[in-house]
Amino acid sequence: MPKMKAIVKTKPAPGAELVETDMPAPGPDEVLIKVLASSICGTDLHIYQWNDWAKKRIKHIPQILGHEVCGEITELGTNVNQDFLKVGDTISVETHIGCGWCYECRTGNAHICLNSRIFGVDVHGVFAEYAVVPAANAWVLEKKIPKDFGSVMEPLGNAVHTVLAGPIGGNSVLITGCGPIGLMAVAVCRLCGATKIIATEVNEYRLQLAKKLGADFTLNPQKDDVREKIREETNGLGVDAVLEMSGNGSAINEGLKALRPGGRFSMLGLPEQPLKIDLNEVIFKYLTLQGINGRLMFDTWYKCSRFLSSGRLDLSPIITHRLRLEEFEKGMELMESGNCGKVLLYP
Amino acid sequence: MPKMKAIVKTKPAPGAELVETDMPAPGPDEVLIKVLASSICGTDLHIYQWNDWAKKRIKHIPQILGHEVCGEITELGTNVNQDFLKVGDTISVETHIGCGWCYECRTGNAHICLNSRIFGVDVHGVFAEYAVVPAANAWVLEKKIPKDFGSVMEPLGNAVHTVLAGPIGGNSVLITGCGPIGLMAVAVCRLCGATKIIATEVNEYRLQLAKKLGADFTLNPQKDDVREKIREETNGLGVDAVLEMSGNGSAINEGLKALRPGGRFSMLGLPEQPLKIDLNEVIFKYLTLQGINGRLMFDTWYKCSRFLSSGRLDLSPIITHRLRLEEFEKGMELMESGNCGKVLLYP
Amino acid sequence: MPKMKAIVKTKPAPGAELVETDMPAPGPDEVLIKVLASSICGTDLHIYQWNDWAKKRIKHIPQILGHEVCGEITELGTNVNQDFLKVGDTISVETHIGCGWCYECRTGNAHICLNSRIFGVDVHGVFAEYAVVPAANAWVLEKKIPKDFGSVMEPLGNAVHTVLAGPIGGNSVLITGCGPIGLMAVAVCRLCGATKIIATEVNEYRLQLAKKLGADFTLNPQKDDVREKIREETNGLGVDAVLEMSGNGSAINEGLKALRPGGRFSMLGLPEQPLKIDLNEVIFKYLTLQGINGRLMFDTWYKCSRFLSSGRLDLSPIITHRLRLEEFEKGMELMESGNCGKVLLYP
Amino acid sequence: MPKMKAIVKTKPAPGAELVETDMPAPGPDEVLIKVLASSICGTDLHIYQWNDWAKKRIKHIPQILGHEVCGEITELGTNVNQDFLKVGDTISVETHIGCGWCYECRTGNAHICLNSRIFGVDVHGVFAEYAVVPAANAWVLEKKIPKDFGSVMEPLGNAVHTVLAGPIGGNSVLITGCGPIGLMAVAVCRLCGATKIIATEVNEYRLQLAKKLGADFTLNPQKDDVREKIREETNGLGVDAVLEMSGNGSAINEGLKALRPGGRFSMLGLPEQPLKIDLNEVIFKYLTLQGINGRLMFDTWYKCSRFLSSGRLDLSPIITHRLRLEEFEKGMELMESGNCGKVLLYP
Repeated sequence: MPKMKAIVKTKPAPGAELVETDMPAPGPDEVLIKVLASSICGTDLHIYQWNDWAKKRIKHIPQILGHEVCGEITELGTNVNQDFLKVGDTISVETHIGCGWCYECRTGNAHICLNSRIFGVDVHGVFAEYAVVPAANAWVLEKKIPKDFGSVMEPLGNAVHTVLAGPIGGNSVLITGCGPIGLMAVAVCRLCGATKIIATEVNEYRLQLAKKLGADFTLNPQKDDVREKIREETNGLGVDAVLEMSGNGSAINEGLKALRPGGRFSMLGLPEQPLKIDLNEVIFKYLTLQGINGRLMFDTWYKCSRFLSSGRLDLSPIITHRLRLEEFEKGMELMESGNCGKVLLYP
Repeated sequence: MPKMKAIVKTKPAPGAELVETDMPAPGPDEVLIKVLASSICGTDLHIYQWNDWAKKRIKHIPQILGHEVCGEITELGTNVNQDFLKVGDTISVETHIGCGWCYECRTGNAHICLNSRIFGVDVHGVFAEYAVVPAANAWVLEKKIPKDFGSVMEPLGNAVHTVLAGPIGGNSVLITGCGPIGLMAVAVCRLCGATKIIATEVNEYRLQLAKKLGADFTLNPQKDDVREKIREETNGLGVDAVLEMSGNGSAINEGLKALRPGGRFSMLGLPEQPLKIDLNEVIFKYLTLQGINGRLMFDTWYKCSRFLSSGRLDLSPIITHRLRLEEFEKGMELMESGNCGKVLLYP
Repeated sequence: MPKMKAIVKTKPAPGAELVETDMPAPGPDEVLIKVLASSICGTDLHIYQWNDWAKKRIKHIPQILGHEVCGEITELGTNVNQDFLKVGDTISVETHIGCGWCYECRTGNAHICLNSRIFGVDVHGVFAEYAVVPAANAWVLEKKIPKDFGSVMEPLGNAVHTVLAGPIGGNSVLITGCGPIGLMAVAVCRLCGATKIIATEVNEYRLQLAKKLGADFTLNPQKDDVREKIREETNGLGVDAVLEMSGNGSAINEGLKALRPGGRFSMLGLPEQPLKIDLNEVIFKYLTLQGINGRLMFDTWYKCSRFLSSGRLDLSPIITHRLRLEEFEKGMELMESGNCGKVLLYP
Repeated sequence: MPKMKAIVKTKPAPGAELVETDMPAPGPDEVLIKVLASSICGTDLHIYQWNDWAKKRIKHIPQILGHEVCGEITELGTNVNQDFLKVGDTISVETHIGCGWCYECRTGNAHICLNSRIFGVDVHGVFAEYAVVPAANAWVLEKKIPKDFGSVMEPLGNAVHTVLAGPIGGNSVLITGCGPIGLMAVAVCRLCGATKIIATEVNEYRLQLAKKLGADFTLNPQKDDVREKIREETNGLGVDAVLEMSGNGSAINEGLKALRPGGRFSMLGLPEQPLKIDLNEVIFKYLTLQGINGRLMFDTWYKCSRFLSSGRLDLSPIITHRLRLEEFEKGMELMESGNCGKVLLYP
């Protein structure tokens, strides 16, 4: 049986190992890909660190890590329709695996499938030389899009989903948290006509990147008076939209205060625990709060694809580190430090 | 100077007094009305009780209480356009007084005016024989609508605003809290095609009313297993919408759990303090939370008016008590007990 | 090989024949059903009559007619997931067969699939004892819903899709054309809180049915002054919504005039040819015109299902005729005359 | 009585005259402005040419022409609130004068007021040294915005209203007609993240401007195969949106064909007469057609203001000619020829 290299969670403890394992074979509704590039997500880091969430969430060990990927199809499962997918196609991959039949899947919301499995969490992932992918989750890359961008289209999708969850052209926006997805959100807001983009982040490296990607104002809440600056920049009105990318309690409560009456608060960042929230702020100010999860399947992918292939969205500044698969531990350290944008891994 | 009877907060302490005071005269952009009927709102009760909110909020004493009203115009201010308002018109009154010029007023959201004043809170109200009303806040009643319904159109508007803030036809709905507005929401949901209406409330008197108004299931969270009942009645999916009318922390957190992924949570009830909320519920489940405040000016009023004049919405069961103005203390006690629907006061 | 009875278009000419033909066998992604009830759609009539549209549209002869159906699953194809479909399930069937992979299918709009095939038009239909159905198009009926209603859920879906394509609660509505779908739209508008429902139709039999189903006003444009009546009933404002179910040029142009500025015009009825339209009416009045096609897959089906299983939508008055399969010619004649609601055929 | 120069329609016949006339005085709810710049709209040209529309529409002669303007407030009417408007403020002006009390005005749609009067058509306009303006129609310019842009904010509002009437970020767009508003629409689409912008126009001068403003493809339907080019550029899918700016029958019907199923067709251009439209295209393709009229009052103005003050929208290429008020005839000739963008007139 042919073998391949893969980064595997081999035991329920911190860390992961580079091991040699069996090459997988695609099931009837799957395709096999040769991994061209992959990238590290916060989720991967949590599994690597083996935090509380990971301990509860990871069901199968050994588990191959990773879900952000660009790969080339090398084999099709027996049921896969060749009109739509072909050997040789370069693809990116949607992470949410829908059942296709529940209420959510059948009403156009497969991203919140009631029976959802997550790629790289519930099934083997992509930090490897090869990976099997459900055909329904494959996204064929337009040729103009570089493979590195293909690998980060999934988190880009989170950013695009959040930005386009409400009006954006002619809007003022506060983005709280400039991790890779927050940075992408800055760029997408700029591309889509936001007229004032304020980004907050405690890490100065990332704050610099936010500036580079088009933020009008970058603020460090540990140093700057965010509330006052927003008041000043919006004539006391408040911002039209907050895109919450940090999961941080203080950022969330300040974000609610920063909004004008009638504004929207789109939340992607996951808090670690229940938070004290002043709902009177929400009710009196007639705010709309939206939980954002995944990407619209596949409306968001079409948008990402068009942004990238038009050449109007340049993610280059966000891809700050490129490592070999073997160097994954260095990648995890970088992510832990916060002194990076997106870290790519190449087999 | 002619005199009239009015219920007045005469000092910064619990209670209110029936006093004789000067008849008011309308300013240039106001009208004078003879009060035909008025009704007691929770806000009036808070001012009467002199709770913490009232202590901070009430700026002017003496203050005539009350803002829900049906009255007949007896005099027009000098600038009021007689094409639109006439002496002899019967009107109801919108409570939010907009400045007409701020961002919110100029974008069709006068109900969240940045300079908003509240009728019966910031200016004198309607628990009196006569009252002055800003002409822009007058709503001329269709003749078919009885004056008692005219008096409660303002809180009806809260209910209609909340129900119609998202899809309702063919939806399953949980209404948490069956005070007068919650009860109205039950009736409006029924009228607008909700296919499963579940109402929760701890007061049995009000729970009975909810049943009468069209709730399919009425549950007392102190006795019934709400979570299980909802699971059962929605095949484990959860409800499409929660209309939160209680401001109660437990109702709010249970409401979030009761929703299906992608559902909406429309909040009208005001919590007394910040609450611990599990935002992961909101984010993973891709929920939308909406703060509801006031009524769309005047889209909501048109809806209320049509519901009532079509004869398809019958509020009779909700008007449980009719008192003379002099009996206001009895009305306040009824409201305090919760053993009532809407309490009307007649001068 | 087992045989079954079926109504078949056997040659490219008017008419159809009841013939004995081979029992079909389900493909891997299909199910076989025993037909319990079916119903005649205008499309079936057009194919039967062999009109210009049918001549161009029908590609395969012989063709088994019919697509509205209620049936019991008797066999599953080899790929069909038994968690979702089982032998013995009673189902209704969605008519639009999506490819699952085009832009529209992948963005939640399978009903307008770019490679769409139509059940009973491009593949064999249901006027037979048995039929094969793509598993993805099966809709499992809740037990509470009678099989006759199961058969007409597809056209009910057209009505529901049209009614819910915009606001309806508290709205005034003009429904132009009271064929079976128009009649269903009357009932759904009533159920969903429309406060004034005006229906127009030239056939008096159907106009009577519209009254019975909840129309506030029924008008015959050949006798009544529709424009004047609408003006009167809406205080000169015009209606909020027109649901166009006739495809008739005069109804369409009068419908545009009947709308208030900012109203919506939802079109389901298909005109036979290009029509002269005064677009200034549309532009100056800031109207929204919506072409409606099929049913949202499967959001509309959930709505239909809930309306029926709640017992709040009663389609009984619309099912006016019940015939044996052998009597299909009588059914076609009834449909041609217009003196019917829905005509059901039982094998 | 002080006098001023003004361009006046003095008789019901082609042409207009520069005359000396009385300085106007503001009514109680009006302000007086000194005109700093004005610009010529197609409507002005129609009144100048005295076409069929103008003959029917113009009720009062003499009539001062013009409604696009930037001016400085020199006097306030007696009722005007000085908190919101001050002598010395530089303003632009909304053209639709609402009654403030009809169904449309009271539901946030003053731009389609049932009793609407049009500035420069029903009341005197701005091709003059001074003009009176209803205070409610004044828009105070942010200081960063040059007065020439202030003068063209009204037509910019038409463009913004049309572009933002549906999704735009990540969308492909066909703009049919590159008059000044079509050109502005190109720039706004570009600013708001449209990923493919195709513009059609028969005038080569304007087609060049469209290119300059950000169109990806500029096509002359008299020379180019528009239908084929769109197929090619959208992989056969069609465009997501058509912004119709020409009123031309052939452009409209081709525009409907150019759309993908589910697309939107936003119409601002006014056809001269009823047109033959294939509504089957609309219905089968599930299109949405929107009539666009005026600007949202004042949501659209806020958007325009932010686009301009952010410096991200540069209208300079569109302002092609600057003339003295006395040269208005030359301006009208330029507009007639089509060899211009926006023509400004300075008193």
